[in-house]
Amino acid sequence: MTQKLTFFLARGTISVAPHIVLEELGLPYEPRWIDLRAGAQRGASYLEVNPKGRVPALSTPQGVLTETHAILVWLASTHPDAGLLPADPWERARIDELALYLAATMHVAHAHFARGGRWADDADAVAAMKAKAPALMAECCAVIEARLNDHEGPWATASGYTIADPYLYAVCRWLKGDGVAIADYPALAAHHAAMAEREAVKTVEARHA
Amino acid sequence: MTQKLTFFLARGTISVAPHIVLEELGLPYEPRWIDLRAGAQRGASYLEVNPKGRVPALSTPQGVLTETHAILVWLASTHPDAGLLPADPWERARIDELALYLAATMHVAHAHFARGGRWADDADAVAAMKAKAPALMAECCAVIEARLNDHEGPWATASGYTIADPYLYAVCRWLKGDGVAIADYPALAAHHAAMAEREAVKTVEARHA
Repeated sequence: MTQKLTFFLARGTISVAPHIVLEELGLPYEPRWIDLRAGAQRGASYLEVNPKGRVPALSTPQGVLTETHAILVWLASTHPDAGLLPADPWERARIDELALYLAATMHVAHAHFARGGRWADDADAVAAMKAKAPALMAECCAVIEARLNDHEGPWATASGYTIADPYLYAVCRWLKGDGVAIADYPALAAHHAAMAEREAVKTVEARHA
Repeated sequence: MTQKLTFFLARGTISVAPHIVLEELGLPYEPRWIDLRAGAQRGASYLEVNPKGRVPALSTPQGVLTETHAILVWLASTHPDAGLLPADPWERARIDELALYLAATMHVAHAHFARGGRWADDADAVAAMKAKAPALMAECCAVIEARLNDHEGPWATASGYTIADPYLYAVCRWLKGDGVAIADYPALAAHHAAMAEREAVKTVEARHA
């Protein structure tokens, strides 16, 4: 039992990305759903798991790991036969580059749509952030659209299907709610459609529905 | 000449982190300073290098690479003898985890102090973000302080000196300007002092002065 992974996640959040990778790898894991609307991410029992009060977190035999891309890389690195992360430093760098953009720019832009209160206490300020978020998400889509068009095939990088794909998919699930039409970005829409056909994605979508 | 690295950076920004790693590795590189006050990051010539209009960027024989942690990982991975990035997946995961927190939470909190206009067009909203930023940076310091105290030695992770250290150092250079006293966080202050003694850091500080 101590070897089993415990995966702390919340419905519809970025935890969709590692959730897909856990399913792709066929790993045994125990899901622990954190109810964000009830504020469970700031409850004492979850703060013992992740003092940052965010999801996802993965409890492993070596300790608890947080931050989406760190979890994705660890899962891929400890299961190299699945081929979800190339060993070549340059191919790897392109995956890291996209993941860092998703984490530090696009996910952040999305957070300003619904959770601007993180960065300002004033209600008008929060409303101003929400008003600008759709344009920022659209800018991010344009950056990624250009990137998807720099190589053949539906996947996020030239390396084929990797951990970058579930990450991009999980972020793009938010576009409609953020006021952006994915159809305006044909390569991004094709990526999303290709992801939706994967069995692991169907399994995860059913659980987050 | 085509094998040479060209490093696009701006004074005092997060480009300090890869700058330190380039010096630690003793690599030949051509620095190209981007004048942010003059808006050069949005000029046509720089947008050809990095369409995102941000620094740092590293032009390599394989192409241009952006995003700080992607650059750090690539530099360390292509120069494994320097030992700046452990091969063990768990040690590596802990470094990625800290880097992702720096990129997506702490650097973002800092950006709200001086560049809130990224996320809202209203001047009052930008002022409200600036007002909250010091408290957010202090929260980030507390998270990292606890983390530094979970292992021996001055460095950011239990793996000794790695790419996580220049990254943490570069972010903590901003604390004073953001209204946070690093002395309130003894482990963070010790990390900063240990970094300041390194020759590579002295070289880089002289160039950013």
